[in-house]
Amino acid sequence: MTGSTTSPDTADSPWRLARRCERMNPSVIREILKLTELPGVRSLAGGLPSADTFPVDAMRDAAMKVLTDTPREALQYAASEGFGPLREWVSAMLAAKGVEAPAHRVLITNGSQQGLDLAGKVLLDAGNTVAVETPTYLGALQAFNPNEPIFASVGSDADGPLPGDIAALPRDTRFMYVLPNFQNPTGRVVPSERRDAIVAAAQRANLPLVEDNPYGELWYDQEPPKPIASRWKEGVLYLGSFSKVLAPGLRLGFMVCPPALYPKLLQSKQAADLHTGSFSQRVVHEVIKNGFLDQHIPTIRDRYRTQRDAMDAALKTSMPAGCEWRKPSGGMFFWLRLPAGCDAMALLPKAVEAGVAYVPGAAFFANDPDLRTMRLSFVTLAPADIADAVAKLGKVIKAHLAGA
Amino acid sequence: MTGSTTSPDTADSPWRLARRCERMNPSVIREILKLTELPGVRSLAGGLPSADTFPVDAMRDAAMKVLTDTPREALQYAASEGFGPLREWVSAMLAAKGVEAPAHRVLITNGSQQGLDLAGKVLLDAGNTVAVETPTYLGALQAFNPNEPIFASVGSDADGPLPGDIAALPRDTRFMYVLPNFQNPTGRVVPSERRDAIVAAAQRANLPLVEDNPYGELWYDQEPPKPIASRWKEGVLYLGSFSKVLAPGLRLGFMVCPPALYPKLLQSKQAADLHTGSFSQRVVHEVIKNGFLDQHIPTIRDRYRTQRDAMDAALKTSMPAGCEWRKPSGGMFFWLRLPAGCDAMALLPKAVEAGVAYVPGAAFFANDPDLRTMRLSFVTLAPADIADAVAKLGKVIKAHLAGA
Repeated sequence: MTGSTTSPDTADSPWRLARRCERMNPSVIREILKLTELPGVRSLAGGLPSADTFPVDAMRDAAMKVLTDTPREALQYAASEGFGPLREWVSAMLAAKGVEAPAHRVLITNGSQQGLDLAGKVLLDAGNTVAVETPTYLGALQAFNPNEPIFASVGSDADGPLPGDIAALPRDTRFMYVLPNFQNPTGRVVPSERRDAIVAAAQRANLPLVEDNPYGELWYDQEPPKPIASRWKEGVLYLGSFSKVLAPGLRLGFMVCPPALYPKLLQSKQAADLHTGSFSQRVVHEVIKNGFLDQHIPTIRDRYRTQRDAMDAALKTSMPAGCEWRKPSGGMFFWLRLPAGCDAMALLPKAVEAGVAYVPGAAFFANDPDLRTMRLSFVTLAPADIADAVAKLGKVIKAHLAGA
Repeated sequence: MTGSTTSPDTADSPWRLARRCERMNPSVIREILKLTELPGVRSLAGGLPSADTFPVDAMRDAAMKVLTDTPREALQYAASEGFGPLREWVSAMLAAKGVEAPAHRVLITNGSQQGLDLAGKVLLDAGNTVAVETPTYLGALQAFNPNEPIFASVGSDADGPLPGDIAALPRDTRFMYVLPNFQNPTGRVVPSERRDAIVAAAQRANLPLVEDNPYGELWYDQEPPKPIASRWKEGVLYLGSFSKVLAPGLRLGFMVCPPALYPKLLQSKQAADLHTGSFSQRVVHEVIKNGFLDQHIPTIRDRYRTQRDAMDAALKTSMPAGCEWRKPSGGMFFWLRLPAGCDAMALLPKAVEAGVAYVPGAAFFANDPDLRTMRLSFVTLAPADIADAVAKLGKVIKAHLAGA
């Protein structure tokens, strides 16, 4: 079922779909997540934070306090910009990372996904070029797609996008989308020198950047370099999220808007849903306002570091020769490249049958997918289950290579 | 500050704005709400439900229960469709109103405003015609505007849109937006026979309808007729909200999607923000699941009926001859038309100076604004304050008419 303007669904109905609908498709990840709900399947597919990390007691106390002290404000319509004290908190948090983010340019969003949606709306006309990494975050492609852009894939290596490829982009490219810390899907982090080189190339090309940083706090070896936004203040739209450090089900994120974009992003937010839920914003601010995250995030890091190490060990044990991966220094994902002759999408049904699921890497390429790649999440399963899942996956790959 | 592509703001920055930004503007209502925060100003401007109606104790109990019984689910990523039991609740509630709304076609949204945003995205290409009432809900114009449509204003009388004008719409009109119950801004309700006539005209024109029903439960004299969606099941996209019957700050609404639209609306929701907050959805379901609204909504009706009657009495006492209004039978607003020679926008500064604020009606017209109109909300102020505010407004209008 395509749902496009010529589909059987619409032929006998009065509805005609906008042209952009042809570019909206069921998310591959979403479809795979359905598979992983089958009994007996261990999932390395979803990017779900471990529910064991959710600060339930703190959330409960905060919800009580908000509904006791300021129930009328928490349940009433509120400003499209977001809750003032939460905007101030974001501003101070980012100042400590070298990012100039005055509260009056911070917008609270429904997760950073909404930030991507609003950025696309405000910056992209149909037919415009938008540059993305190779590979890139699937959710960004989905968020930008309704604006009918052309995606230009910037060549990348293990350190991220190549500055020379930025220089070679079409002159009318509207912006480049980058996820420099523990990228989804590759797990790679862009080193400081490469960040400077990207900024230099972008400035020469007069190409602004949308920097997405959902995973920056999830570092297990050393803190990542300062954000790209700290290196080019007027040329970077910066997106952040509370999903990975508190809980994703709240759908709370934020964007720091360059002055030239702030009014339109605000109007776009207002038109999209008036404002982000007041109650959730106030509960989160209540939880974090006195330094809670300084204690909480290290516990998440400890847990995920152990799981990451378990996956790295399992891959070393179970994968056949010719498989390539790097141990990520943060985030939630390993990026595995299979030997020649393997197609991760084609192997998926066999893997699910064997009791393990992953996301084929092809979905993360805007152009020219590398069919040999797959994304493996290490944050959802416990270490023993990771070892078991990776062992099953290794068997499936080996059997395929043996021509079974 | 316009923020358009030619503004000084962007001239020295690398950002170029999408063409649609030229159609995004600061909301008039938003700007007026700022005025109303001045000390001493009684506001008839905002459409804010009375915070006295918020069921704070029930919300607190529900938040506790959700964070005690299902904290991991309430804080985790969830399905883009929305929380299953809440979708089931919506389905059953609408079945009782004659609307066929199986849960698998209900999408939970961030207020009905997001429903308008998603509908516009999925149905409107740049240059398409969308039909709206005269006047119409400002938030719908703002939601559709980013898709760069042409608005066709359908002529209306006190009973709503005129079927003859629907027949005369351009053939390529994509849909008509209607708010049949206690419309924002006019307060009018479309009678049953007119609903049938609208459906008949729309079917002849093969013109589907987007029906918005945020105020349907707020009736003070008699229940409004059955929704338009109950009269043409495949041709109506129906939007609803919990904002007016529980609390707007939660940002919870829903849409019932015709089969031809469901897959694209779902994909559009996913691309926009993945899903609506799990915690808020579960708290609301916990509050309402055992019939709470059956007890709660009548208390809201009693309160607002008294306020409505107070405003009607105050208008009779304080308005000069030549002012026109109808006492609304539900909703939140009176629609006042001033005598010839008055411009509600031009009078606003004098009114604010005198201590009262309202929304000039011009903002609610897609084309050819009637400058003599204004919208007055009766739900925010207590009856005595309504009388005082309307008296002040009457003096300002009389002074203007006297040439002062």
